[in-house]
Amino acid sequence: MQMPASPIRKLVPFSDEAKKKGIHVYHLNIGQPDIETPSNALDAIRHLDMKVIEYSHSAGILSYRKKLCEYYKRNGINVTPDEMIITTGGSEAILFAMMTCLNPGDELIIPEPFYANYNGFSISSGIEVKPINSVIENGFALPSMNDFEAAITPRTKGIMICNPNNPTGYLYSKEELESLREIVLKHDLFLFADEVYREFVYGGKQHFSVMNLKGIEQNTILLDSISKRYSMCGARIGVIISKNKEVMSTAMKFAQARLSPPTFGQIAGEAAVDTPESYIEEVLKEYIERRNTVVNAINQMPGAFCPNPGGAFYAVARLPIDDSDKFCQWLLEQFSYNQQTVMLAPATGFYSTKGRGTNEVRISYVLNVNDLKNAMQCLAEALKVYPGRTV
Amino acid sequence: MQMPASPIRKLVPFSDEAKKKGIHVYHLNIGQPDIETPSNALDAIRHLDMKVIEYSHSAGILSYRKKLCEYYKRNGINVTPDEMIITTGGSEAILFAMMTCLNPGDELIIPEPFYANYNGFSISSGIEVKPINSVIENGFALPSMNDFEAAITPRTKGIMICNPNNPTGYLYSKEELESLREIVLKHDLFLFADEVYREFVYGGKQHFSVMNLKGIEQNTILLDSISKRYSMCGARIGVIISKNKEVMSTAMKFAQARLSPPTFGQIAGEAAVDTPESYIEEVLKEYIERRNTVVNAINQMPGAFCPNPGGAFYAVARLPIDDSDKFCQWLLEQFSYNQQTVMLAPATGFYSTKGRGTNEVRISYVLNVNDLKNAMQCLAEALKVYPGRTV
Repeated sequence: MQMPASPIRKLVPFSDEAKKKGIHVYHLNIGQPDIETPSNALDAIRHLDMKVIEYSHSAGILSYRKKLCEYYKRNGINVTPDEMIITTGGSEAILFAMMTCLNPGDELIIPEPFYANYNGFSISSGIEVKPINSVIENGFALPSMNDFEAAITPRTKGIMICNPNNPTGYLYSKEELESLREIVLKHDLFLFADEVYREFVYGGKQHFSVMNLKGIEQNTILLDSISKRYSMCGARIGVIISKNKEVMSTAMKFAQARLSPPTFGQIAGEAAVDTPESYIEEVLKEYIERRNTVVNAINQMPGAFCPNPGGAFYAVARLPIDDSDKFCQWLLEQFSYNQQTVMLAPATGFYSTKGRGTNEVRISYVLNVNDLKNAMQCLAEALKVYPGRTV
Repeated sequence: MQMPASPIRKLVPFSDEAKKKGIHVYHLNIGQPDIETPSNALDAIRHLDMKVIEYSHSAGILSYRKKLCEYYKRNGINVTPDEMIITTGGSEAILFAMMTCLNPGDELIIPEPFYANYNGFSISSGIEVKPINSVIENGFALPSMNDFEAAITPRTKGIMICNPNNPTGYLYSKEELESLREIVLKHDLFLFADEVYREFVYGGKQHFSVMNLKGIEQNTILLDSISKRYSMCGARIGVIISKNKEVMSTAMKFAQARLSPPTFGQIAGEAAVDTPESYIEEVLKEYIERRNTVVNAINQMPGAFCPNPGGAFYAVARLPIDDSDKFCQWLLEQFSYNQQTVMLAPATGFYSTKGRGTNEVRISYVLNVNDLKNAMQCLAEALKVYPGRTV
């Protein structure tokens, strides 16, 4: 089976080479936060009280699912343990959702740019991603309903969004979600929502979950993960949630085929639900400063533009460059400034329409403010000398 | 996408009902050993020294892969860290192998009965399983080369074996593997070998790995897991190994799409490689006694037959019954003896040919000898009164 290379990982060999030359590489290519995992989650692992590390229930440890209901309730989402299956990361939740709700050849509409691995999972499950364009000029807002209507065919089975968005950081408004509700109802589609960045919302805005869209409860599938929320990407614990019993019963067969999600990660995840609110508040304060550092710096670079994202910890910037793949590789292979350079993700990998994203990059602002300042200075200097610059 | 229910899990609701009635259920349906996880593996988790639970390398933590090379070397298998990708359980190794080496519609030959989840993963990856028959009369030895030849079509891309076998417990001999080598060479096929029960070999026999079949190094894919070896099913750590660089490079793209295998499980797995030999020796001694308990008991039941398996901790028995699905459900729903009953896996789920396995069950001898004796007594009593008995 043909699988595209990951846009956030394919440049790793070049960054390894740069490091061998003694160059410090600022990794803004991947959504791996430097934030510490909550100590309560780590302590649960350290106090492990088990003699046999058994398979858990295929849907996940019941006490963890019950605990998760508390988390969702605090976030205004009412779900029961039966309405969730714990997955191996958000990745598996996405894969289960696709395999459960679509047949090979069926179509899934996704506003692009979108999280690159949606492509990988669509290939694995044999489904067709139908991208519709969101544009940098309005900060990557939801495309118009006309664009959705134009993309719908008899094979269209669902719409997928990521909110707040990876890679754009865009936070969909309640109004945008209400219009999605209309189109989902009209064409009887599934609505898949990846809400793994739910907590990462800035500027006093509120996150609105698809689980609270009235009248489409049977159409809605929530995909979630503890990776970003608690800086526990390596735990590999996510969840797929739906009130549609048929969907959950089919998803359960996929869950049983792979036996169970990781036990250790579930133990850490259960403890993490009790993480004090102050943890997230601190993290948010930090991210707002990081976002501002990056966005302000880029908007001061001649010919560059970066919308100010309302959530997540990503931004997509337009740069005065000929080709973002070439540029990102050049940054690692040929450029350094004070023995430092920066690793970015070419935005081309987040588009499924060929030719889009060639002058855009995704920036993960997952480093401390000082490192981000240095990284932005590198980028500014790089844009002055890059042979393929367009200004 | 249509997914079959897991034959080892689909009866769970009936066993839950039996338990509610106060009936003790002996679980011989699932390969969940009761053996304690080695303390060195658990201690590594308890002494966790990490502040951020980051994604690991998509191929797995390098120090773990290096350590695994030691394990394989002790077992006479020479591999390097570059030739392995750590997976989320053996399950993901199987899925990656299928998706990497076959296209949708391609055919994979597997002697049946086979591990039921191969079916699930073949559906997920869109490939066709072509079963060829192994039979209980010779203990489920490898089918003849004529049978393999007869099953090969232009779409055949590989052969999959599990050695020692789940569900039959059969240990393939070096000679059988050499004949597989011939057919793999002749038709240029992939040879996939699931060797997760490598250590579980009885009666002085030796396990022979496909990695040591000469001249087919580019065709061979090893699928492995720490789940059974160290009684760590819940850690969800497996590995896919091949000397074929193109295979590994494609598999790596699937690995990158799901980001990384679980970090905690890898830490436990790395420590587990140093488990003293005495641990496995003790476990083997225990399993031999368990196997003998089950096999001897079944062969004393009128009309029943159970070959004596050379490995793993499963046996497939032929029972004097009309329909193994009905029988296994009846055991949970209608039968009890001294307030006890037994949960078995109907063998039908391990066959892909309809109608096969209807008078066979798989027994996992994963309980202590005393429990197994009680379970076998239940089974003997059940066979006396089961309405669909055939003797």
